[in-house]
Parts: sequence; C-alpha cells; structure tokens
Amino acid sequence: MRNPQPSPLSLSEIVSRLGGEIIGDSALKVRQVATLETAAPDTIAFFANERYLAQLRSTQAGAVIVGLPLSGTLDIPHIVAANPYAYFARVSALFNPPDAHAAGCHPAAVIDQAARIGSGVHVGAHAVIEANADIGDGCSIGAGSYVGPGVVIGAEGEIYPNVSIYQDCVIGRRVIIHSGAVIGADGFGIAMEGERWLKVPQIGRVRIGDDVEIGANTTIDRGAIDDTVIEEGVKLDNQIQVGHNVRIGAHTAIAACVGIAGSSRIGRFCRIGGASGIAGHLSIADRVEISAHTLITKSITEAGTYTGAYPFESNRDWRRNAASLRSLGELASRVRVLERELQLRKKGKA
Amino acid sequence: MRNPQPSPLSLSEIVSRLGGEIIGDSALKVRQVATLETAAPDTIAFFANERYLAQLRSTQAGAVIVGLPLSGTLDIPHIVAANPYAYFARVSALFNPPDAHAAGCHPAAVIDQAARIGSGVHVGAHAVIEANADIGDGCSIGAGSYVGPGVVIGAEGEIYPNVSIYQDCVIGRRVIIHSGAVIGADGFGIAMEGERWLKVPQIGRVRIGDDVEIGANTTIDRGAIDDTVIEEGVKLDNQIQVGHNVRIGAHTAIAACVGIAGSSRIGRFCRIGGASGIAGHLSIADRVEISAHTLITKSITEAGTYTGAYPFESNRDWRRNAASLRSLGELASRVRVLERELQLRKKGKA
Amino acid sequence: MRNPQPSPLSLSEIVSRLGGEIIGDSALKVRQVATLETAAPDTIAFFANERYLAQLRSTQAGAVIVGLPLSGTLDIPHIVAANPYAYFARVSALFNPPDAHAAGCHPAAVIDQAARIGSGVHVGAHAVIEANADIGDGCSIGAGSYVGPGVVIGAEGEIYPNVSIYQDCVIGRRVIIHSGAVIGADGFGIAMEGERWLKVPQIGRVRIGDDVEIGANTTIDRGAIDDTVIEEGVKLDNQIQVGHNVRIGAHTAIAACVGIAGSSRIGRFCRIGGASGIAGHLSIADRVEISAHTLITKSITEAGTYTGAYPFESNRDWRRNAASLRSLGELASRVRVLERELQLRKKGKA
Repeated sequence: MRNPQPSPLSLSEIVSRLGGEIIGDSALKVRQVATLETAAPDTIAFFANERYLAQLRSTQAGAVIVGLPLSGTLDIPHIVAANPYAYFARVSALFNPPDAHAAGCHPAAVIDQAARIGSGVHVGAHAVIEANADIGDGCSIGAGSYVGPGVVIGAEGEIYPNVSIYQDCVIGRRVIIHSGAVIGADGFGIAMEGERWLKVPQIGRVRIGDDVEIGANTTIDRGAIDDTVIEEGVKLDNQIQVGHNVRIGAHTAIAACVGIAGSSRIGRFCRIGGASGIAGHLSIADRVEISAHTLITKSITEAGTYTGAYPFESNRDWRRNAASLRSLGELASRVRVLERELQLRKKGKA
Repeated sequence: MRNPQPSPLSLSEIVSRLGGEIIGDSALKVRQVATLETAAPDTIAFFANERYLAQLRSTQAGAVIVGLPLSGTLDIPHIVAANPYAYFARVSALFNPPDAHAAGCHPAAVIDQAARIGSGVHVGAHAVIEANADIGDGCSIGAGSYVGPGVVIGAEGEIYPNVSIYQDCVIGRRVIIHSGAVIGADGFGIAMEGERWLKVPQIGRVRIGDDVEIGANTTIDRGAIDDTVIEEGVKLDNQIQVGHNVRIGAHTAIAACVGIAGSSRIGRFCRIGGASGIAGHLSIADRVEISAHTLITKSITEAGTYTGAYPFESNRDWRRNAASLRSLGELASRVRVLERELQLRKKGKA
Repeated sequence: MRNPQPSPLSLSEIVSRLGGEIIGDSALKVRQVATLETAAPDTIAFFANERYLAQLRSTQAGAVIVGLPLSGTLDIPHIVAANPYAYFARVSALFNPPDAHAAGCHPAAVIDQAARIGSGVHVGAHAVIEANADIGDGCSIGAGSYVGPGVVIGAEGEIYPNVSIYQDCVIGRRVIIHSGAVIGADGFGIAMEGERWLKVPQIGRVRIGDDVEIGANTTIDRGAIDDTVIEEGVKLDNQIQVGHNVRIGAHTAIAACVGIAGSSRIGRFCRIGGASGIAGHLSIADRVEISAHTLITKSITEAGTYTGAYPFESNRDWRRNAASLRSLGELASRVRVLERELQLRKKGKA
C-alpha cells in the first residue's frame, strides 16, 4: 500500500488543506510520512509519545508534526497541531490514498443470479456470493471470501480475502473486514440434557454499523434469538471473539485477543486493552477503559479505568509471592488476631 | 437461519411432542421463539436465569417456558419443564430446523477422482477435496473449504466455508466445524540443537468423535507421533487452541479463547471457562470446572471448581494492591516476626 | 504425513548417519518412531522428560533414545545422545521426509500474468497469486491461499491452504506458514479526533526471515510506516497476534495465543509461554523466558525467567484469597502500624 512515488507537497500546501501552524520554512517540500527514527530529509514525521523524545532531537526528517507545547522549540520546520497524531493520520492519507479496486467481477468468482451487485463493485477470484445477498455500490469483495445468502453489505465496504460471512448478516457502509474474520457463525448455545449437550438453534443475525473496522481472524457470533450488534464507528483489532447477543456501543475501540462472552453490553467510547475478557450478561458503562489482561466479572456503572492483571516479576520473586497469595486470606486473619491482642494489652495497661 | 414463516404451533401441540405441563390456555398458538425482552404476543420465551426476572414480569410474550418453582406464579400461559433451557432448545428446533443443503457438487469445486463422496453430499463452490478423502453420506462441505488427502468425515457432517482439514484426519458423524477452523496443522514440535531449532515431524493425526462441534477459527493440531483425540460430544467454542497429543474427554464443553498445551488430558464432562489455559503434560479429572482466565499448571485429580483470575478493580486500587503483592512474601515474613515477638512477651509476662 | 511403509533402518545405520552411541544390539531394525507408551517392537522411542520414567520402564519399543545419564541402565537396546529430543527429531525426519509436492500450477488457480513463478513451484487449486508477486523455486502455495500484489516468497516455502498474505510482504527461504494465518493485514492504527476514530494508513510491510515457521491462524500486522520484522529462525505457534512494527529477534520461539502489541522489540533466543502478552513500545532482552499467561508491562533488560500468572486454587480458597487481595495495600499498612506499636512498646520498656 506504500505509494512508491507520491507527489511532493510543501508544508504550506499541507496546512492549507488540514489547518495547523507552520514554524520554519513553509516552502519545504516533503513526499511521504516517516517515523522519527528512520526519516529521510524529504519526509515528514510526527511526535506524540514522550518515549520518543531522543528520536525527535536526532531525527533526519525534513519536517515534523508536534503538539502545542513544542511550538518553536525545534530547529527544523514543524507543523503545530492540537492533536498531532490525528493530524499525522490526515497527512498520511494525503500521501497514501486507499488503493482503488477495478470495478468488475472476476470470471472465477461465483455469484448467484439472485444476488444484487451494486455499481462499481469489485469481486475477486474465487469469491462466492450466495442468493439474495446485496452488495452495495463501490464495495470490494476479496478473493476467496464467502458472502452467505441474504447478507447485506453497505456501500464502499472493503472485504479482504478469505473472509466468511454467514447468512442474513447486515453490514453498514464503509465497513472494513480483514482476512480470516468470521461474521455470524453460531453462538455457543448448548443445553445439558441427561448428560448430553443439545444444540440451541442460533437464529439471530449480526448487525454491524457504519464505519466499523474488523481485524484479521476476529469472530463475531450471530445472536441466539435476537441479533448481535456492533454499533457505528467501533474498531476491533485482530483475533477478538464477540459472543452471541453482545452489543458494542458506538466508537468503542478494542485491542487484539479480547473475548466478550454472550449477552454483555459494552458502552460507547470504551477502550478495552489486549487479551482482556468480559464475562457474560454484564453491562459496561460508556467511556470505560479496561487495561490489558483484565477479566471483568461484574457490571461497571461508572466511567473510569479498571485493571486486573497480575504484576509480573522475576520467576524467583513470583514463586515466593504467589505461594503467599495462596494463604492470603489466612494472613489477613492472623493480622486481625495480632491487632486484637495488641488492643487487649493496651486496655490492660490503661 | 431464522425461519421467516414457521408454521404456528399451539402449546398443546408443543407439549404433546416434548412433554411438560401447560398452565393457562393450551390452545394458544405461537409461531417462533423469542427473548423475554423483545418477544411479541405470537412467540414463546423462556426463563432460566434469575438476572432476567424483571423481564419475565414485563414480557409481551404469548407464553413462556419456566422451571418448576415458577409453576402457576405467572399471569400468562406457561409451560413448566424440569429443565427450561433444554426444553427451549427443543422448542426452537421445532420452529427452526437446520437448513437443508441441496445435494450435489458445485461445478467450481475441485474433487480428486480418488476421493469417495457419499450419497446426498453437498460440496460448495471452490471447495477442494483431495485424493482418498472419504466424505460420508449427507455431509455438507462449505465453499472454499479444504479437505486434505486421506481425510475421513462421517455421515451428516456440516463443514462451513473456509475450513482447512489437513491430511489423514478422521472426523466422526454429525460433526459441525465452523468457518476458519484448522484441523490437523502441525503441532509446535521443535528441538533446540546448537542454537538452531530443528523441526520435529508431526506424524500423528487428529481424531474427532461423533457429535462434536468446533467453533470458528479454532485450531486443533495433529499429534507429534500418536494422535490428538477429541472424544464424542465435545463442544468447542471459537478461537480455541488444542495442542498436539491432547485428549479431550467426551461431553466436555470449552468456552472461547482457551489454550490447551501439548499432551494434556482433559476428563469427561468438564466445563472450561473462556480464555483459560492448561499447561502441557497434565491430567484433569472428569467433571472439573475451570473458571475463566485461569491457568492450570498442575494436574487436577478431583472434580470441583478451580479458579485463578486476578480480581479486577479500579486502576487506582489495583496499583496499590499490585504494588503490595510484589512484596507479599516479605509481608508474610514480617507477620511471622510480629507473632513471634508477641508470643515471647506473653511468655515473659506469664 | 505419517509414512505408511518407511524402509526399516538398523540402529547402526541410524548412528552412522546421525552419530550417537549404541548400547545393545546394533543390528536391530526399526521402521518408525513411536512414543514410549504406544510403541511396537519394530519402532524406536525416546526419553527426554522425567514425567515419563514409568513409561520408559514398561515400553514395548524395540529401542529407545536416551541421554547420557541413562547410558547402560536399560535392558533394551538404546542409542545414547547428548540431546535425545533433537536426536529423535532427526531420526523421525529419516523415516518421515516432508511430502513432495508435484510441480505445476493447478488449472483452477488464478495467477496474474505479471507474477513470477519459480521452477518446481506447486500452486494448489483456487489459490490466487496477484501481479508482481515473486514465488521462489520449489515453493508450494496451498489451495485457496491468497498471495497479494508484490509479495515475495523465497525458495522452498511451504504455504498451506487458506493463508492470506497482503500486498508487498517479503518472506524468506524455507518459511512454513500454516492454514488460516494472515500476514500483513493493517495494524490497529487509529487516532481519535472530535469523538470519531480516524484510520491511520498502514504503509509498512511485513518482512519475514529464513527458516521461520508460522502457526495456524496466527496474524502478523504490517507496519504503520516502517516494517514489522520477524527475524530468521523464529518459530511461532498457532493463534499468535503480532502488532504493527514489532520486531522479533532471531531464533525466538513463541507458544500459542500470545499477543505482542505494537512497536515492541523482542530479543533473540527468547522463549515466550502460551497466552502471554507484551505491551506496546517495550524492549525485551535476548534469552528472556516469559512464563505462560504473563503480561509484560515494562521493558526487560536482563536475561532470565519472568512470571506473572495468578496461581490457581479451588474456587473456595480463591474466593477468600482474592477478596483479601482487594485490600492488600491496606493490610500492608496495618502491618506497618503493628510494627510501629510494638517498636514503641519495646522502647517504652527499655
């Protein structure tokens, strides 16, 4: 996707399109974005994380995007922006527009006659689109992807190769789904009856809002009865598991390897750290942040940051501390005994 | 899969097929199952989780399935069943039978001449079935799925699109495998020799019993020498990893994102919570329950529930407690010192 | 992959090829490797894990590979090797050479005219190879795999079915990639701007060194600007997530279900246990071992073993201990108070 020869832009051209203030030579031309560490003089880098301050000081970039506090503090030309990372995203999009897909269905794709294919749609080789599927204008369906019967995909969707979408799922506009993702497989609905598991039919769908992005090998199960719902603007990283009948509120971002058990409801604008888990049938308020490797076992009613990872240490220290942890309840009791004894003595003395 | 127009059934028709007792109007007709929360008057809901008691009280469902304790306590018609969730599963199956697949191989499937395809088999577009594979009667092989040489799949298997099954694996009858699952990839067998990893050939197979269900993007590795074995009736959710030479006992159910390391043996009728892990070369007894996010590092010889997740809390509280955890062994020593000192004083006084 | 009829080899033939010392009948012929537990008399087993000592004593194997300490201690013929597991790997490779793939592109593969296909390459049915991809001599591209535009794969690569490789990724020689793996999907780069997430273009690539193996359903994201790099000899198990701009040092081995967040750098010869996590922007030294289920939240500068899993216990014990953990910081304060009081009394007495 790296554009080999984007046209150079001067800093003043960038600022005329995106806003921000230039400190230094506004005629300087750059032709691509770069990291502070590996930048060449004809590129523009950005600074948004204090960890990389030394790299800012030594960068070979022609120009750099910084926040307000650094305005005027650098020897090289810089663009000052209130939100340097978002500004950088927009600069990068200037130099690296999304690939255009040639419209048309590859002759080796299999498209049911009862599917509706919008205008300007690209369908890759060996994709399969089943009956009554409805592919919106400008969508791209990648090679080898499977779009089940009755699936609706809104305009300008980007479905990468080898995605599987089960029947009747409904996907909004401008949704990106990466390779290996599975949308609408059966939820894990089983009932024990006389020492045998009965399968509970999973008759709901998955409904995905506009502007959602779904990472590689992420799985979102269809609802058991009602639908599983991903609201607009949600961003899901790779290898996330979303159980049946979960609802994820708009603009929530979830890092890789998170699992969300059935029927839980996540609020809007939440941020969930990698490999965390949310147990079933819970409700998480808006704007909750959950740290990495944290298991949420109770509903959360207030915004804030919640954490539950075991702090790592050298194996030797861990062994000692973990052994003590196994009798922590008893230790707490022993401290209470000590407190009582000391209390008695005080009284005895008084 | 939601059947748009299932034929309505009266409560008495349901009870005549499935048993149970009707309290209220037995002639009432319902045409689909529903949740308490979103039910319409022509549907039947169920109540099996105390969390949803308020929803039971306010439901618009025409009828509801309940357990014995609620018999006669509701104003609306209800069916009383010993196991309301299993009963519900059976009612839902009445209204929502599995989709029938048209028998026949899609012309865009590639089937080796030396493969055996049973009667009534459906093979989707772009599926690949290699030499000496044996597909049992009534199976469905989804679009884009890969069935390697020598693979055996028993009758009435449902292999969803984009599944990969490596050579020589043996799969029982009525097995369901969801999209993206990989059966029989090489186990993680490597031996360090002179600062280089040697690959250990993985020459075992995967053997899967009857009535197993395998979730989306779950991976089950082939054995290093002997086979990896999943016994009958096992239910695996999505994104589970089963290492080489694991054996999972019959009717065990495992929630999403669990990892089981090589050569461990899980008993029968176990229930393993989401994102848990089982270290290698362990043995877990029958009827063990493992809570979510728990790492099992030693064999378990007795049925019971085992847990090892860090309890989550606000980040502020976590920071204080986690810091103390790092010196818990030392804290325990200090308490022992206090106990000894107080003991000495008592003696001194006595 | 199990070779049904490998030619038998005598112990002396094995030792003449691989070294080691024979104790017992060197003319004994074996025809396959086996585990101690299930070995037949015409097979050779190995002993490298103390857990299996009882099985060593009762094995029916014709011969066994052992380490130096057991030399001469067994009644059956044995080969003594300094590193019995590595020796076993080599013996197994004698009996079980990798499958040869017939050279040639399946007529149902779709290969762009502007792709370069080396000599002796096998391309399976329904594979897709895009423009300007370069497939090295002797590679095998499995059925249904997708190789994006500009991808380079070095000689003798083994890409299993249903793998997805995004544009411009560069893969070394003798690399094995298992089914369902996704190489080069977009990293999770999003910037919040006015309550909406902006996508940050991901313009880097994935570069993979020689002799790397990548497990089933593992995902490796392309870099945001610079590349994500997997150095030579790295071994990745299944369902691992590697974030954008991560660098993994040569010969590091990572067990299943591990997640590595963006921009972290892992050293050489590290070993990372299953389901562990490494937070973003960290640096891990060479030869670090990380235990299973451990979250690393700070850089590690010294070789050694690091651990952070909660020790599991019965649910009853866990409930008591976990409840105490929530007030551990307070407990530590109370112990300090006790210590101070006792100190004061001592002084008072003195």
